[in-house]
Amino acid sequence: MTTPQRPHVVVVGAGFAGLACVRALARSPVDITLIDRRNYHLFQPLLYQVATAALSPADIAWPIRSIVARQPNVRVEMARVSGVDAERRTVVTEDGRWIAYDQLVLATGARHSYFGRDDWESVAPGLKKIADATAIRERVLLAFERAETEPDPFEQRRLLTFAVIGAGPTGVEMAGALAELARHALSKDFRSIDPQRARVVLIEAGARVLPSFPSRLSLKASQALERLGVEIRLGQPVTRCDADGVTVGDDRIPARSVVWAAGVVASPAARWLDAMHDRAGRVAVTDGLAVPGRPEIFVIGDTALANRPGGRPVPGIAPAAKQMGTYVGQVIDRRVRGQKPPPPFQYRHQGDMATVGRKAAVAVLGGVQLSGPLAWLMWALVHVYFLIGWRSRLLVSVNWLWSYLTFDRGARLITMEPEAVPPPRREVRSDAA
Amino acid sequence: MTTPQRPHVVVVGAGFAGLACVRALARSPVDITLIDRRNYHLFQPLLYQVATAALSPADIAWPIRSIVARQPNVRVEMARVSGVDAERRTVVTEDGRWIAYDQLVLATGARHSYFGRDDWESVAPGLKKIADATAIRERVLLAFERAETEPDPFEQRRLLTFAVIGAGPTGVEMAGALAELARHALSKDFRSIDPQRARVVLIEAGARVLPSFPSRLSLKASQALERLGVEIRLGQPVTRCDADGVTVGDDRIPARSVVWAAGVVASPAARWLDAMHDRAGRVAVTDGLAVPGRPEIFVIGDTALANRPGGRPVPGIAPAAKQMGTYVGQVIDRRVRGQKPPPPFQYRHQGDMATVGRKAAVAVLGGVQLSGPLAWLMWALVHVYFLIGWRSRLLVSVNWLWSYLTFDRGARLITMEPEAVPPPRREVRSDAA
Repeated sequence: MTTPQRPHVVVVGAGFAGLACVRALARSPVDITLIDRRNYHLFQPLLYQVATAALSPADIAWPIRSIVARQPNVRVEMARVSGVDAERRTVVTEDGRWIAYDQLVLATGARHSYFGRDDWESVAPGLKKIADATAIRERVLLAFERAETEPDPFEQRRLLTFAVIGAGPTGVEMAGALAELARHALSKDFRSIDPQRARVVLIEAGARVLPSFPSRLSLKASQALERLGVEIRLGQPVTRCDADGVTVGDDRIPARSVVWAAGVVASPAARWLDAMHDRAGRVAVTDGLAVPGRPEIFVIGDTALANRPGGRPVPGIAPAAKQMGTYVGQVIDRRVRGQKPPPPFQYRHQGDMATVGRKAAVAVLGGVQLSGPLAWLMWALVHVYFLIGWRSRLLVSVNWLWSYLTFDRGARLITMEPEAVPPPRREVRSDAA
Repeated sequence: MTTPQRPHVVVVGAGFAGLACVRALARSPVDITLIDRRNYHLFQPLLYQVATAALSPADIAWPIRSIVARQPNVRVEMARVSGVDAERRTVVTEDGRWIAYDQLVLATGARHSYFGRDDWESVAPGLKKIADATAIRERVLLAFERAETEPDPFEQRRLLTFAVIGAGPTGVEMAGALAELARHALSKDFRSIDPQRARVVLIEAGARVLPSFPSRLSLKASQALERLGVEIRLGQPVTRCDADGVTVGDDRIPARSVVWAAGVVASPAARWLDAMHDRAGRVAVTDGLAVPGRPEIFVIGDTALANRPGGRPVPGIAPAAKQMGTYVGQVIDRRVRGQKPPPPFQYRHQGDMATVGRKAAVAVLGGVQLSGPLAWLMWALVHVYFLIGWRSRLLVSVNWLWSYLTFDRGARLITMEPEAVPPPRREVRSDAA
C-alpha cells in the first residue's frame, strides 16, 4: 500500500449509500478506498425477481470496479472488514491487512433478524444477497419437482405450500411473484401435480399488509394478492418455524418452503465502534451523520439510526441511503477543502412503492396515492430507470416485456449440484398437523 | 406411478441427443418419461461464455419441462439414475424408485477425463455444467481481485497467469475469451495491477491447435490467438498439475487458475449395462444404435461409440447427438407401429466451427474453409439460431452486440459466499519455479 498524499477516505460497503458517497467525492481532492466483501453492487429492490426466476443475477448486479472505473480517485478492494481501530484510525480486514484512513464512512447495510431465533435461519432464508435469491429459487423449483414424483398426498401438499413471513414490501412482492410463478409460468409443465393448486401463505404479525403505507393502499394490495390466490394471515406472530412448516398462533401450516421477510438487523458496525445503537443494531449518529465524539467516522444507510424532525428514524430504504451517502460526500468535500460544513442532514421522503404480481402495484408519490395498472407501469419505469447502465435497462425491459406477454419465466434453473441440495425430508413426519 | 397403456419409452438425459429423440416421438403412440438429474437443458457450446462473464446461465439454459410442455406424451422427472436392470426392463433411480420401460434410450453424455489423474480435478476444473462455468468465472475474477492487493510480485504474477489445458474447440475458445476479458473488459478496472499483462497459456499435447480441423485453419486460429496475446505450448503433455501451477515437460508454469479442456469420458452407462465399451467409456452400439443383443436399449450422443463407414467413430459434437436422437426416435416409432426398421444410422458431418475472441473464427462448412470476421459472423448466427426460443436469441444477441460495441462483460459476478471461496494459498511456495 502506498501512503496517499491527499486525505484518505475509506468507504466500507458499496451499496446505495456507499456508492452515492463515492460519487459525491468524484471531484474532491481525496483518495478513496472502497471496500466491499463482494465484487458487485446489487439492486436489492429487484432481488425477489431473481428468487422467483424472472430475472438473472447479472441483470441486477454490476461489478463495483466497472461502476467506478472512470473515477480515478477511487481504488476498490474486495475484502471483509473485521474491525475498526478508531484510536489509530485504521480499518482491519479479515485477511490481516491494516488500512489507515483520515475519514471513514461505514455503509455496511443490514442483514436479517430472526428476533433471537437464529435457528430459524436455515429453514426460512431471507433475501439480501444473490446467493440468497438463487437458493430460494432452487428451493421453490425443487419443491415442485419433488411434488411431481411424491406418492403421499399429504407430503405433496406440504411441498406445494409456500409461506412468506412478513408483509412489508419484500414479503408482499415475494408472495405475489410466487403465486404468479405457480399459476402462470409453471401451469403447463407438470403431469402429476397442478401447480395452480399451490398454496402461498403470507403471514404478518401486524394488523395489515404494507404497514408503512396508507391504509387504503394496504387494502388495495390485500385485494390484489387475494385475486392471485394468496392467503393472508394477519395479527399473529410466527411462534415456530422448522423444516416441516410454520406455526402461527395455534395454527400449524405444513410447508416445505418458507421465506423470511420479517426483520432486519444492522451489520456489526456498532460493535466495531463500540458505539451507541438501538435494538436493531443501528448506530446512533449526529445530525451530520457522524458518530458522536468521532467527527471523522460517518455511518450511513441501513446501518445508521438517523432521526427526522419529530423523532421518527429515517427509513431503511434505497432513496434514504442514497441521500445520506451524497450528504456525507459533501461534508467530507467541504472539510478537506477547509470550508464550513453544510447544514444538518435532512431526509426528503419521495414516496413508497410495492408491486403485486404482473399488473398491480400500489404507490405513494409526492402525496398522491396510486394503485392498479398505472401504479405498476410507474413502478416498472422507476425501477428500470434506477438500474445501472443501459445494458441492464435493456435486458430487464426485454425480460419483463417477455414475461408480461407470455407469462413465461426465463431463469428457472436449479444449478446447485445435486449433492449440495438438501435431501428430501420425507422421514420427518412427527409433527403432522 | 400409473402403468402406461401404450409402450413406455424411457429417455435418460435431456441433452441434444435425448431431446431430439423425444421430439422425434412427438406424434408416436407411446408414453415417454424423460429423466434428467438437472432441471435444465444446456447449450454447452456457449458454456465458455458463461465462464468468461459474457453471458448469464439463464441465457443458454432452459427448463426441460417448458421445452416439452406442449408435447402431451412426455412426462419429465428430475432424478439421478443409478442403474439399469436389463432383465426386468427397469431403470433404478438414486432415490429408490423403479421405472419400468419397454424401450430405453440412454443419452447421458460425457464428463471430463483426467486420464487417471483424478486428483487434478479440484485444481483444474472442466467445463460441462453451469456450476462448472460459474465456478471458473469466480476463480478467474477472484484471481484478479487478489492480485490487486497482493504485495509479493511473484505471487501476483502467479495469480495473473491462466493456463488452459487442451486446444480443441473448447480450449481455444476459452483461451481467447480469457485473453479478451483481461485485455479489454477489465483493462480500466484496477489500480495496482494491469490486467492487460495477464498471461494466458494454452497447452496442447498434440502438434497443433484444433486437431480435428484442416491444418490451414489450425494455423489461422493460432495466429488469431497470438494476436490476442495467448501463449501456445504444443507437443508436450502436462505432467503435473497442482494448486501452484502446471508442469509441461520439464517446464514449470506457476498459475493459480487452470482450466481443463483436454479429455472426456462417457457417463457410466456402460457400467449400468455391463456392455462393451472403449477406453473412454463409450458403449459400442449396432448400426441401429442399439446395444448388441438388447434391441430395446439404445445408446446415443457422447455416451455412444458408433462407427462411420471406414471405421472412424461418429464425433462427440452436438449435431451428431441430434442426428442420433432423431434416428432412434424413428426406429422406435416404426417399431411400435409394427413397420420395418429404417436403414442403418448414417452420420452426416455438416462442419466444424470454433471462435477465437471477438472477431475471429475458423469454420469448415460443406467443404468450404472460412476464417476471419466472416467466419465469426457465421459462427454467431449459427449459435444464436440454435438457441431455444426467441427470448434467449434476443438476450444473447443484445449481450453480444453490447460486448462487441463496448468490450464490456456484463456478468462479472462472484456470487459464492466468501466462506465457500477457497482461501488464498499464499503459504504454498515450495515449488517456486
